[in-house]
Amino acid sequence: MELDRDPGTLWSWITGLGEIGGHGDGGVTRMAWTPELRAGNAWLRERYEELGLSVAEDAAGNLFGTWEAGEGPPVLVGSHIDTVPRGGRFDGALGVHCGLEAVRLLQQAGHAPRRPLRIVGWMDEEGARFKTPTFGSRAFAGHDLSGLSGQTDDEGVTLPEAMAGWGRDFERLPEARGVDGIGAYLELHIEQGPTLEERAIDIGVVTTIVAVLGLRVRFEGVANHAGTTPMDRRRDALVAAADGIGRLQEWIATQSYDTRLTVGIIEAEPGGFNVIPSACEFTIDARAVSETAVAAVEREVRGVLASVGEAHGTPCTVRRTHLIDAVPVDPAIADAIEAAAAADGATAVRMPSGGGHDASHVGPHVPMGMLFVPSRAGISHNPLEHTEPGQCHAGARVLARALATLTG
Amino acid sequence: MELDRDPGTLWSWITGLGEIGGHGDGGVTRMAWTPELRAGNAWLRERYEELGLSVAEDAAGNLFGTWEAGEGPPVLVGSHIDTVPRGGRFDGALGVHCGLEAVRLLQQAGHAPRRPLRIVGWMDEEGARFKTPTFGSRAFAGHDLSGLSGQTDDEGVTLPEAMAGWGRDFERLPEARGVDGIGAYLELHIEQGPTLEERAIDIGVVTTIVAVLGLRVRFEGVANHAGTTPMDRRRDALVAAADGIGRLQEWIATQSYDTRLTVGIIEAEPGGFNVIPSACEFTIDARAVSETAVAAVEREVRGVLASVGEAHGTPCTVRRTHLIDAVPVDPAIADAIEAAAAADGATAVRMPSGGGHDASHVGPHVPMGMLFVPSRAGISHNPLEHTEPGQCHAGARVLARALATLTG
Repeated sequence: MELDRDPGTLWSWITGLGEIGGHGDGGVTRMAWTPELRAGNAWLRERYEELGLSVAEDAAGNLFGTWEAGEGPPVLVGSHIDTVPRGGRFDGALGVHCGLEAVRLLQQAGHAPRRPLRIVGWMDEEGARFKTPTFGSRAFAGHDLSGLSGQTDDEGVTLPEAMAGWGRDFERLPEARGVDGIGAYLELHIEQGPTLEERAIDIGVVTTIVAVLGLRVRFEGVANHAGTTPMDRRRDALVAAADGIGRLQEWIATQSYDTRLTVGIIEAEPGGFNVIPSACEFTIDARAVSETAVAAVEREVRGVLASVGEAHGTPCTVRRTHLIDAVPVDPAIADAIEAAAAADGATAVRMPSGGGHDASHVGPHVPMGMLFVPSRAGISHNPLEHTEPGQCHAGARVLARALATLTG
Repeated sequence: MELDRDPGTLWSWITGLGEIGGHGDGGVTRMAWTPELRAGNAWLRERYEELGLSVAEDAAGNLFGTWEAGEGPPVLVGSHIDTVPRGGRFDGALGVHCGLEAVRLLQQAGHAPRRPLRIVGWMDEEGARFKTPTFGSRAFAGHDLSGLSGQTDDEGVTLPEAMAGWGRDFERLPEARGVDGIGAYLELHIEQGPTLEERAIDIGVVTTIVAVLGLRVRFEGVANHAGTTPMDRRRDALVAAADGIGRLQEWIATQSYDTRLTVGIIEAEPGGFNVIPSACEFTIDARAVSETAVAAVEREVRGVLASVGEAHGTPCTVRRTHLIDAVPVDPAIADAIEAAAAADGATAVRMPSGGGHDASHVGPHVPMGMLFVPSRAGISHNPLEHTEPGQCHAGARVLARALATLTG
């Protein structure tokens, strides 16, 4: 199958949608249930209509465009067009743009799908306004979201109020469950990491969405006077924490390239300039390709920190705050994406997705696949987020070829 | 000179004053310009009168009792009876109690001072209510405190309002300058550290009040996604900070017993569970026996942290927030205290004071000396603060003998 290799149309969509909620410097703010996202959805609806797709919005605000063709459950492809505040034009949106371009290319190439092909723009993947990430895809997957009714934005507007402003009823969210009616799900996303760019590879074929472990660590020491307490008489919880963080860094450096550990938040108590800390708490975000791998990280963290606590006379407790299972990609879809890359002359590498995506919630229900395109310097959630037009279009073509296989 | 060795009177004073603002468990709250401190001062005024001392309160609320005897500038002795919230019965108060007991013992022993001997209870050494530590002694030393007019307590009461409630006029604070009229200053205090107790020594003869250096350290890294950024591609400001703190701990352990370094406050930015910190700031409180020694600490800190910053790709800036010069003790007074201990059969060791005291402000103007008595487990600012009656009385006797020398 010959596919047009001109990125012009795709790029015009990227820049066009980027002006909606745009700051003029590449930065974009289109948060959930705002006029900016509503304008973005209107833009998307126009593209759907231009391509002859039938348009539908569900009870969660997910916006679908269906190439009604063939029969059976549709193949779903897409991502999200909401952003974080001052995010970029690629995180999420590129997956929707490439879905559109894939349909355009397949139509141009005369592809006749034997199953319907449906594009989706998920509502509120970022969750930046109401702390409700992957809202739309969770509703689509049938999650119970009733506990989110009290979520408020910075202005005190509640989520149900914001939905009502769109003509959506929070109480009717369960009607958004739609995962049972589709046959497969594909998502293209920017890598949000440096690997593809550094290795000059066109396509990342995602093998799994990693497991995410959240821990809260607390060392308990003894508060004392910074001036009168000799160094060798201290039980300093912050010194213990620093030692523990250092040791975990040394250990993690010896582990798999795909295993990650991050301390994002730290606090010392009582937090006085001249008081030896009586306690130090910090968070750990650990990621690995499977539950087994992440359990090994947890065991090591607990072991290392317990021995550090003992050495400093500052007992350590480690509390698990969350554990999100890894979501494996369907092997046949990964193979299809890899074959599509080869057919298009693109280089590809298999890699895990270190971040969660809408695919994390759809994947447990239907065969799911994901592909990455390079992110310049790995930057995302930032106006500097960038992927070259040619790299974007390579992704769209590989996506089109994979969709041709799945709907062929 | 034979001195009564019965600690009964002294102990009755310690427990008696401890009931004013007391919590029944050894804990005491008597903050500046409160009814509790006013009641404490009324108690002190009664003790002054019982000993036949002439009583005066100055414009800063410092409360003096003078044994009018001999001629020339008086020898001043004392400390403070204000406390931190839920502090103990010894920090500060014991210095006043021992001043009273020293006068009582000297009167009982028939000592005839050739210079007046004046006891002081300084106003607001702790500064817990208005963040105005060593308020009274700074006013007495002639410091310009006009900048404190805007200080407020947790209820929004301003310092001038609180002073007005005592019949004191904030504007008239300069009238409290009195340091020019005295000949010497002595202060007894609990050690607030473990050294005397651990070595089973009765008296610490203070050689100097250490220099205190305050630094604010900032590592600048690059914020990034905790899941998608490989470990070896990170510029993690918090990891750099932990490394820096660890290296400084290793170094400080090789330094003089009297050199101290404390990190009391730490914060990571942006402070997200799953975001690699773009910056990490922490404080350093460093103490050493002289400006030269503390300057050496500062040089090492700057050198170590710069090289850590370079190694992690996270440039480090170190900003000095304060430098309080060391305040040396008058050698003749230190000798007099040491001789007094020997005469009383008490063991003594020379040591620096790691904490600041009212003596820090009086010392630059007149010959000053300090002595410490043991603190159980080094605990202070806590209801568990404790010094045995016999240890307290040994301090009072040594103080009495030193005062006899200075007024003899």
